[in-house]
Amino acid sequence: MIVVMRPGATEQEITGVKTLIREMGLKDQVIVGTDLTVVAAIGDERLKDCAVVESAPGVDKVMRVLAPYKLAAIETKQQQRTVIKLSETCVFGGVQVPVIAGPCSVEGEEHILQCARLVKAAGGHALRGGAFKPRTNPYSFQGHGEDGLKMLAAAREETGLPIVTEVVTPSDVELVSEYADCLQIGTRNCQNFKLLEACGNQPKPVLYKRGMSMTIDEYLQAAEYILAEGNPNVILCERGIRTFEDHTRNTLSLSAVPELQHRSHLPIVIDPSHGTGHARLVPAMAKAAVAAGADGLAIEMHPDPAHAMTDGAQSITPAVMEEMMLSLGRIAEAVDRECVKVSEMV
Amino acid sequence: MIVVMRPGATEQEITGVKTLIREMGLKDQVIVGTDLTVVAAIGDERLKDCAVVESAPGVDKVMRVLAPYKLAAIETKQQQRTVIKLSETCVFGGVQVPVIAGPCSVEGEEHILQCARLVKAAGGHALRGGAFKPRTNPYSFQGHGEDGLKMLAAAREETGLPIVTEVVTPSDVELVSEYADCLQIGTRNCQNFKLLEACGNQPKPVLYKRGMSMTIDEYLQAAEYILAEGNPNVILCERGIRTFEDHTRNTLSLSAVPELQHRSHLPIVIDPSHGTGHARLVPAMAKAAVAAGADGLAIEMHPDPAHAMTDGAQSITPAVMEEMMLSLGRIAEAVDRECVKVSEMV
Amino acid sequence: MIVVMRPGATEQEITGVKTLIREMGLKDQVIVGTDLTVVAAIGDERLKDCAVVESAPGVDKVMRVLAPYKLAAIETKQQQRTVIKLSETCVFGGVQVPVIAGPCSVEGEEHILQCARLVKAAGGHALRGGAFKPRTNPYSFQGHGEDGLKMLAAAREETGLPIVTEVVTPSDVELVSEYADCLQIGTRNCQNFKLLEACGNQPKPVLYKRGMSMTIDEYLQAAEYILAEGNPNVILCERGIRTFEDHTRNTLSLSAVPELQHRSHLPIVIDPSHGTGHARLVPAMAKAAVAAGADGLAIEMHPDPAHAMTDGAQSITPAVMEEMMLSLGRIAEAVDRECVKVSEMV
Amino acid sequence: MIVVMRPGATEQEITGVKTLIREMGLKDQVIVGTDLTVVAAIGDERLKDCAVVESAPGVDKVMRVLAPYKLAAIETKQQQRTVIKLSETCVFGGVQVPVIAGPCSVEGEEHILQCARLVKAAGGHALRGGAFKPRTNPYSFQGHGEDGLKMLAAAREETGLPIVTEVVTPSDVELVSEYADCLQIGTRNCQNFKLLEACGNQPKPVLYKRGMSMTIDEYLQAAEYILAEGNPNVILCERGIRTFEDHTRNTLSLSAVPELQHRSHLPIVIDPSHGTGHARLVPAMAKAAVAAGADGLAIEMHPDPAHAMTDGAQSITPAVMEEMMLSLGRIAEAVDRECVKVSEMV
Repeated sequence: MIVVMRPGATEQEITGVKTLIREMGLKDQVIVGTDLTVVAAIGDERLKDCAVVESAPGVDKVMRVLAPYKLAAIETKQQQRTVIKLSETCVFGGVQVPVIAGPCSVEGEEHILQCARLVKAAGGHALRGGAFKPRTNPYSFQGHGEDGLKMLAAAREETGLPIVTEVVTPSDVELVSEYADCLQIGTRNCQNFKLLEACGNQPKPVLYKRGMSMTIDEYLQAAEYILAEGNPNVILCERGIRTFEDHTRNTLSLSAVPELQHRSHLPIVIDPSHGTGHARLVPAMAKAAVAAGADGLAIEMHPDPAHAMTDGAQSITPAVMEEMMLSLGRIAEAVDRECVKVSEMV
Repeated sequence: MIVVMRPGATEQEITGVKTLIREMGLKDQVIVGTDLTVVAAIGDERLKDCAVVESAPGVDKVMRVLAPYKLAAIETKQQQRTVIKLSETCVFGGVQVPVIAGPCSVEGEEHILQCARLVKAAGGHALRGGAFKPRTNPYSFQGHGEDGLKMLAAAREETGLPIVTEVVTPSDVELVSEYADCLQIGTRNCQNFKLLEACGNQPKPVLYKRGMSMTIDEYLQAAEYILAEGNPNVILCERGIRTFEDHTRNTLSLSAVPELQHRSHLPIVIDPSHGTGHARLVPAMAKAAVAAGADGLAIEMHPDPAHAMTDGAQSITPAVMEEMMLSLGRIAEAVDRECVKVSEMV
Repeated sequence: MIVVMRPGATEQEITGVKTLIREMGLKDQVIVGTDLTVVAAIGDERLKDCAVVESAPGVDKVMRVLAPYKLAAIETKQQQRTVIKLSETCVFGGVQVPVIAGPCSVEGEEHILQCARLVKAAGGHALRGGAFKPRTNPYSFQGHGEDGLKMLAAAREETGLPIVTEVVTPSDVELVSEYADCLQIGTRNCQNFKLLEACGNQPKPVLYKRGMSMTIDEYLQAAEYILAEGNPNVILCERGIRTFEDHTRNTLSLSAVPELQHRSHLPIVIDPSHGTGHARLVPAMAKAAVAAGADGLAIEMHPDPAHAMTDGAQSITPAVMEEMMLSLGRIAEAVDRECVKVSEMV
Repeated sequence: MIVVMRPGATEQEITGVKTLIREMGLKDQVIVGTDLTVVAAIGDERLKDCAVVESAPGVDKVMRVLAPYKLAAIETKQQQRTVIKLSETCVFGGVQVPVIAGPCSVEGEEHILQCARLVKAAGGHALRGGAFKPRTNPYSFQGHGEDGLKMLAAAREETGLPIVTEVVTPSDVELVSEYADCLQIGTRNCQNFKLLEACGNQPKPVLYKRGMSMTIDEYLQAAEYILAEGNPNVILCERGIRTFEDHTRNTLSLSAVPELQHRSHLPIVIDPSHGTGHARLVPAMAKAAVAAGADGLAIEMHPDPAHAMTDGAQSITPAVMEEMMLSLGRIAEAVDRECVKVSEMV
């Protein structure tokens, strides 16, 4: 931590800051500049609330030196990447670039079965579908709950696709964990820390979406809640951030891919459906994601988007998915990765 | 809802949209323009997922006409404002502009008692303090839990100040509701819909903070979750939004005050502490809030900010609060409101 | 400047950074931490491109210590504030809070005369009106040019109000400077550095609007372009920033008032018309601005907003202005400032 | 244009809106809904200031139906794309994906020659380099001016690479146009409309960068300034937008590629250097851009970034560029485009 003093800060104020730093268990080192003085705090500041020093008299600002997360940091695993397996043919963090696809909501038994078959036929590697839905509007469809989980399990049974489904509150975690191969935490729950902890306390991998206004630092700090409870299998997911842009529902920030890979060992998946909000932009952004080095994709596909119960505007059709998957395979190859149908895997 | 067709949309595509609209239980009316055709959907679209129409062939975009909330809308109460009473001397939505003040966290029994006395002496009308803390960093202090609630109750006992404290997960709602005079839902839980529902199902008023990347529409929609469960006493709270600005932790958007009062009957409180993140900016923004017509303030005050367990950087000292309260009283008067010490109330 | 090395940076890499720092004419000081090493650069970094050090091997990030402006900084004037006089009764930076008001565009001779009379009658202290308009759309009305300037001068002649008008390109500066009492640089030209320089090379004060996506640091750096050319009379103006909010055209960031007053000696004016984009939000935000300590206001007023040639949606009527001015007078008094009609000045 | 009336708007207010619409030369059509009334305005609203209607009594809000640009719209060219040729081997808008590369500034004669050779050797198709630099800080290096243009011309002479260079003020346009093969308008001048007009009045193509807080609508409207003056050769360029993210200097919004191609016939180039601000993120984002369908790239390359006079932090080295170009070639092929060295073109 670097504490920048105001121009003209007194000796007493500098001493005050040094005392505060020592009270925090850190060492201090003073640097006298031409215009002002800076006090460096030496030691592990990651567990400290650095901002508090800003309240001390004579302080202008405080700058962190160390990123405020540990388990998620790449140094922790000596640059080795975490590999997370949902099934034999759906592995994140390796050469493969798996595609999780399916409808926003599980709409019914027949419907999700049909979706699963279409996903598999198009070349997808996992099935997504919401049984518990966090809806912006209280009057909207909120999902089929446990029945939806059973329908998903039936679809897995038939197709062999592992299932990824959202959990929205701590008390549902155990139930969802029984059915799902991977629990999803949505953007609206990105800082629902009790939910993060609960997901850290169960054995299934977690697809943890970035909050729509989270910085990368805040995102990895929050992921730390899951890791710190003992679950090492966290798949990160960029799904668009909130900006002034109005041609998309969110702005998909693809630079998160190389940045997260630079800082963390966790795999990173891109969701171009929520990341744009418009089906017509999904294929281009999916291709861009793979080229940028993403470790996977999460995509909304619906056999009849105009009649989807939720998120129809951003759901691609099975025909579009099929064509897109062919492109993704070619691009993956061009960046020395692999994105092929399960039936064509070697 | 207005559906804008693409230039050159076919008769068949227009018919398709009309069918979709009717399937939604709405009526359609076609407007043929010089460059393109528009289909208006007539009826109550508030309960509908309008975006889905965007998936229909030939559609360019869909624009909502009605705001997507009902109970929170000002029309619902025929322009009358909701008045919420935490105590005889702390009433939101009337002439009074109450100030909720106190430390970010309940740090200990003596500490919170001291804070309560200082708040009362400075002229505050309610005591805030966190017993359950949602912290960005998993290694930070997470609050004293039920013990903290008991300490708050003791402080109320002595000073008579009603207490406002945060609840972070549905399973704690009943417990917090027993102790608190008003439950706070924080910005990180702004779309934790299960928590909103739980708070809608208990009798105490709710101080519901705006999410840091929520639009006003989304905010009122989410408030609807609480109202729809039967709790009419929701106090809205603007606490800063996430923008590109870096001189503050958040950008306090004061235009939310007149805008929310234009759209909703619910009282609106401003939190200039989180809204700026720096103690030195708090008094100016508190004054601005009262001048803009805010129905109350929520402020972090700490007897020794540099040693606060949480949020010290944005906590003002008792001395600053005292001076600020005098200014607020004068400004309130200038806008025909009232912000005075309990002992000076008529 | 603080250079943070990557964990595991080699001795050679640290030496490389030290060499770079010395090549920049600064001194270096190494701080060896528990997890990583930091190199501090001592000396006046304000004239240096610090970011370049980021390219050196082993560097993780670079953090500036000194703000990158000098003449605009409050230290430069030993905490004294700059006072700028447009006329005897319109002075920025002192006790008075002058209000600049008028239509977006000078629409015609009779029209601007009528506006000037209405501004004066309502209690305004200066007249605004655009003769050269930077319009988002090339097909929109672009202003009356020099004829417009003459109309403004005639309005000044009759009412005694000083005139503030925009200049959009360097080659017009001399002309506008002949007529205007104060040149305005709009948000779209906030980093049109050639225009800033040209305005720095003429004798009239400059009302310099913040860019809609400028940080405070960037804003003061750009103001430095005007100051560095020898013109010390720069009035800063916050007019709303670009954020995700959609209930306003921009988000008026009032914390800019105390922040700019903390960092700079230049007066700061608020424009609640562009800052919100909706006439109905203007009075509340004008009041908030005065309470926050603003040194003046710039407001769009039009006798018939629905027929205004430009910006009608955000123009208040003379009747609304009159009522608002009474409120502003009361609020100014409550913060020990003054905002009264010229005829009532002592 | 759709005018939404407030609930309870009177007949007289509705009539007022109808009159306003007719005064604008448009036709009106009233749609009576269950909760409120809407008035549609029929006709070409693109040349109208729709927002003004918001000022009329009883109006809640106004929504545009038609995008506010014409010449830039894809319908104008019946879905045909504009093809822009800087040289025989550098063509934007076709199968080829040309790469413009070079240093931020022209630093000297030998330097720019060396850069040109390196660009060519690595496989670049055009040389960039600034002779006139718009710098955030007035004390920074501002470019070599006309001398810089001569150095660029000499580099073209030797290597055959066409040159792209920035122009920052209208009075320089003629001069820059004499030397350059393509004029660049930077993000800070995105709404310097006099400069846009001047560039519309000279014969060379224009590389026109998106403003860092411009919506796509505003961007195409502003491009219209160049087109409307008679210059059809505008190359669009996304270079990052201003958001809350702090791990990059800007957020590169790649969805601009498919969106701009959906709305406009103009080619779109991506600048991953400014779009991220960090050299280490450039190759991943360049690859993503090509996969998303970009029509070209603009990249900062410097032989010795740590000693670059400007923008060193975001400049890649020749070695990195060489490797990146090989990847880009493979990805271009995977999306049926082409990005190869001039010497390997068929």
